[in-house]
Amino acid sequence: MDLATLIGILASFGLVGYAILTGDGASTFLNGPSLVIVVGGTLGATLVCFPMKTVFGVIGVVRKALFFRGLDNQKIIGSLESLAKRARKEGLLSLQGAGSEIPDAFYSTGLQLVVDGQEADTIESILATEIEYVEARHSVGALLMKTMGTFAPAFGMIGTVIGLIQMLQTMNDPSSIGPSMAVALVTTFYGALLANVLFLPMVTKLEQRSNQEVEQKNLIMEGLLSIHAGDNPRILVQKLSAFVPPSKRAGEAA
Amino acid sequence: MDLATLIGILASFGLVGYAILTGDGASTFLNGPSLVIVVGGTLGATLVCFPMKTVFGVIGVVRKALFFRGLDNQKIIGSLESLAKRARKEGLLSLQGAGSEIPDAFYSTGLQLVVDGQEADTIESILATEIEYVEARHSVGALLMKTMGTFAPAFGMIGTVIGLIQMLQTMNDPSSIGPSMAVALVTTFYGALLANVLFLPMVTKLEQRSNQEVEQKNLIMEGLLSIHAGDNPRILVQKLSAFVPPSKRAGEAA
Amino acid sequence: MDLATLIGILASFGLVGYAILTGDGASTFLNGPSLVIVVGGTLGATLVCFPMKTVFGVIGVVRKALFFRGLDNQKIIGSLESLAKRARKEGLLSLQGAGSEIPDAFYSTGLQLVVDGQEADTIESILATEIEYVEARHSVGALLMKTMGTFAPAFGMIGTVIGLIQMLQTMNDPSSIGPSMAVALVTTFYGALLANVLFLPMVTKLEQRSNQEVEQKNLIMEGLLSIHAGDNPRILVQKLSAFVPPSKRAGEAA
Amino acid sequence: MDLATLIGILASFGLVGYAILTGDGASTFLNGPSLVIVVGGTLGATLVCFPMKTVFGVIGVVRKALFFRGLDNQKIIGSLESLAKRARKEGLLSLQGAGSEIPDAFYSTGLQLVVDGQEADTIESILATEIEYVEARHSVGALLMKTMGTFAPAFGMIGTVIGLIQMLQTMNDPSSIGPSMAVALVTTFYGALLANVLFLPMVTKLEQRSNQEVEQKNLIMEGLLSIHAGDNPRILVQKLSAFVPPSKRAGEAA
Amino acid sequence: MDLATLIGILASFGLVGYAILTGDGASTFLNGPSLVIVVGGTLGATLVCFPMKTVFGVIGVVRKALFFRGLDNQKIIGSLESLAKRARKEGLLSLQGAGSEIPDAFYSTGLQLVVDGQEADTIESILATEIEYVEARHSVGALLMKTMGTFAPAFGMIGTVIGLIQMLQTMNDPSSIGPSMAVALVTTFYGALLANVLFLPMVTKLEQRSNQEVEQKNLIMEGLLSIHAGDNPRILVQKLSAFVPPSKRAGEAA
Repeated sequence: MDLATLIGILASFGLVGYAILTGDGASTFLNGPSLVIVVGGTLGATLVCFPMKTVFGVIGVVRKALFFRGLDNQKIIGSLESLAKRARKEGLLSLQGAGSEIPDAFYSTGLQLVVDGQEADTIESILATEIEYVEARHSVGALLMKTMGTFAPAFGMIGTVIGLIQMLQTMNDPSSIGPSMAVALVTTFYGALLANVLFLPMVTKLEQRSNQEVEQKNLIMEGLLSIHAGDNPRILVQKLSAFVPPSKRAGEAA
Repeated sequence: MDLATLIGILASFGLVGYAILTGDGASTFLNGPSLVIVVGGTLGATLVCFPMKTVFGVIGVVRKALFFRGLDNQKIIGSLESLAKRARKEGLLSLQGAGSEIPDAFYSTGLQLVVDGQEADTIESILATEIEYVEARHSVGALLMKTMGTFAPAFGMIGTVIGLIQMLQTMNDPSSIGPSMAVALVTTFYGALLANVLFLPMVTKLEQRSNQEVEQKNLIMEGLLSIHAGDNPRILVQKLSAFVPPSKRAGEAA
Repeated sequence: MDLATLIGILASFGLVGYAILTGDGASTFLNGPSLVIVVGGTLGATLVCFPMKTVFGVIGVVRKALFFRGLDNQKIIGSLESLAKRARKEGLLSLQGAGSEIPDAFYSTGLQLVVDGQEADTIESILATEIEYVEARHSVGALLMKTMGTFAPAFGMIGTVIGLIQMLQTMNDPSSIGPSMAVALVTTFYGALLANVLFLPMVTKLEQRSNQEVEQKNLIMEGLLSIHAGDNPRILVQKLSAFVPPSKRAGEAA
Repeated sequence: MDLATLIGILASFGLVGYAILTGDGASTFLNGPSLVIVVGGTLGATLVCFPMKTVFGVIGVVRKALFFRGLDNQKIIGSLESLAKRARKEGLLSLQGAGSEIPDAFYSTGLQLVVDGQEADTIESILATEIEYVEARHSVGALLMKTMGTFAPAFGMIGTVIGLIQMLQTMNDPSSIGPSMAVALVTTFYGALLANVLFLPMVTKLEQRSNQEVEQKNLIMEGLLSIHAGDNPRILVQKLSAFVPPSKRAGEAA
Repeated sequence: MDLATLIGILASFGLVGYAILTGDGASTFLNGPSLVIVVGGTLGATLVCFPMKTVFGVIGVVRKALFFRGLDNQKIIGSLESLAKRARKEGLLSLQGAGSEIPDAFYSTGLQLVVDGQEADTIESILATEIEYVEARHSVGALLMKTMGTFAPAFGMIGTVIGLIQMLQTMNDPSSIGPSMAVALVTTFYGALLANVLFLPMVTKLEQRSNQEVEQKNLIMEGLLSIHAGDNPRILVQKLSAFVPPSKRAGEAA
């Protein structure tokens, strides 16, 4: 897992746990019914929003986002540059076998379209639609996380209101008001915790991963179209140089 | 009904009901006047927003969203592929009767336009306008649900403020403060419950169904335009492959 | 007035009124100074936002939205169809007098442009600009309502804070705390009520009316451009069929 | 100043002042340190957001928005119409001196470009860029007001939290709780007041002024391009008629 | 550092510090565990959202935003104007060496593309992609600041809920309620302070810097394309005049 993600999750949960354990009434924070209301209500409302298929699909998207280690843009530019050089010297058909050495399906499929001699418009249309599809898949994942991040605090609040109503209705013993209100607040705590330590960060993480992946695929598409058009490899590198931060660019010879 | 939706609704209501029944003062939660304020106020405000015709139309949209089982994208691509093969061999007119075997009105209408020999621009314009219309219909449904999901908690809050004012104004008997505040909070509970277990999930569900339906119609339109242009069936399949997740794609032969 | 709007307003106000009258301390809810703060503050802040001319213009927009009964899209399609048939048989000039029988100014003006033999681009440009203008006028109306719907609760809250400060500052007599807090909460009540029963529903209503009117004018513009282009009346009907729900479409003969 | 703005500011401040003066504890509302926290904190945070140059520029934008009395669209259409008539009779060069009689810089500059015989694309590009720039300048002004309108209540809340912490920490004398909480709430009051009576209305006002100005410049640009293209003056008036409400249009003769 | 930023930060922190030091219980505000929960939780959640690389990259973006002193648009227009004059007299190749005297990498790279005789479309494509990249980099920085500005108050609230639960659970000694609640509120204070004095202002600041930088690069790109097209230097100045406020424009001779 990306080091930042691991540190982040440990830090958030750890600090909150520390605050709880070093204070009074730590046992109040472990409340089964409260957890069931918040987690169950959140999952229930989320299942109404999305079909089963989508929910399972998102598990895959989340796993890929947490553990996937993608290619480096710089390496891809290098790869495209050598393909461009080869094509200019030996023609497009010489790239016929190159696709098998490329681990990325989008890259190799696109290369095959170029080698097959498809029209530039067709290649761009097919690749662009694929990129849109990738964006849409990630987007549903982020939406599902955002939905859970909205419902968790909502059900936390519903749980607290239920607890308050129950406490106020039977407010006979003054010494029990405190502990009853404490328990009522625990669902709010769970809702806010799950939302801010788990769901909402995942939304941003999925959006960031999606942007990275889309940017990389756009890089590949631009490069393949450039090879298809027969651009000078130096122009290709210049066109693609915007995809890497200035400090990392290979020399931009003119 | 989609399994996820059923489980979701049962889970949400069930868990909340469980929390109420296992606690004190369960009877407080069944409060006629409170329910009337929240449900009546929500419906009232919603009826100001939308004409009667729209409100009735939404009932149909919701029913279709909960119970409709649409075609599978993979099957549609297969169907378009065989039509494309037939058209390349025997010409567009050979597809004349094919429309009657297709259950989907959008698909068969579009096919008829192709067989009739309409211009590509005209076909695209008609089908695209139809897709926009479908989107708009779903969009109104989602907007109506979102409106109800906003007004429910608002009227819940109005009800609670009314209750608090009434309680504070006649705050003679200290032992009645608790129960009076409990009753005042019940409208907030109803508002939050209806919004989070019913209306807001429906908003997302309608938006998801709309996206699915629009995506499928775009798939059909792309396919029909491809047949009309006389594309090689293999290119058609490749163009449409972005509409299904990678794991489910038929082999992408080059 | 549209039946739904009438029912909606009566229901919302009625239910809230019922809740107030059947509870204690009903007289607290009729508080002159509180009403003045909320209504006056809302109007004051709104007058800073918009010029006098706009505020008066919105009164007209609201009146039209509440009481206007527009043409039916189906009837308009029928009207355009017969004009198309006449034009194909007798030429565009034969439509010369038809404009006088049409009650809608946008429709008759557009028809006159077609009869005058203007370029398609010019007609589309003029009509499209008119549609944008209509949208903009409605949009300002919705914005003004939204502004009032935001300021009403804000001034309600300001009034409550003022009341609380006054109460806390002079908190000598414990038995007066309740009634003072009750009065302080009345402004919050007014703000939330005006926003949720009046202003916010009007925002959605104006947006819905605007969409209807814009959709209808787009329908008319599409139809007139189709007549201008000399389309077959059957193609015209098909192009415009997306503007009515499927259940209401005239037979779509090919 | 526009009459509505003046009435609006007087009304809002006046009503709030009335509510304060007629209640108890009026002196609590004049609290120097509270005012310093809210105003100082708001200005401080805003100065971090924007460079000094921008802050000063906004003062000019606000002044112009409050006191500027712009040209009337109807008059501008009349002016463009007579220029069009003159150009059709005597040629574009006859408009050479007309620019000096026009008070609006954008109008006269654009007219000069037409007289100079620039390409239509160049004229549109230059004028459109100028309109974008005007929009951007107004947009920064609205953003700055929006920023202040967000920070004012935020610092109001920070001040209240500080006050509450101070009060709770030294809660010895029960009779001082009330007044201490009252003082703590004063910052919330200031924040909400400044935001809702001053900053947020100014945001909408600046946006409205910007829309008016942009609409007028678009009107002028459309008119000049129409003159440049040699359109019939009647077509020019028709093209521009969408910029004025229907009730004010000059007769639309065909 | 820009003077406004410095004054802003000093003012905000200073005023809040003043409010704390002049009141009671100042020591309560320095609470280690509270600071750790808020800062640690915020950083933790943020690290889940963004990869390590991005977090480090943002540090550079922030530093540049605080301390960078960019070129003046007016000077750049002057520079482009003299290049245009030289090019019209001596041809594009005469600008060969000019790039070395220009400190801005984007400007000199773009100039080199013009001198190299690249197609206008290629130049625009390369420069526009570079501008998009700059926007994206700034955008991630603003997003990270916005994320921290959202999580800080959220963890402040979580900390307060934890504190309240702990206090309510062990509410034996009435005299300890005040101080316990005071400590519980301190995390809310930290969260709101960090968000409003540091993170949220930085979001706007980064967005403003980004707009400035993008505007300047667009200015340079427009100018270089104008030189490439061989425009009259006076037209070039007029085209670019929209990039500076009217009061600062060089005379617009026609």
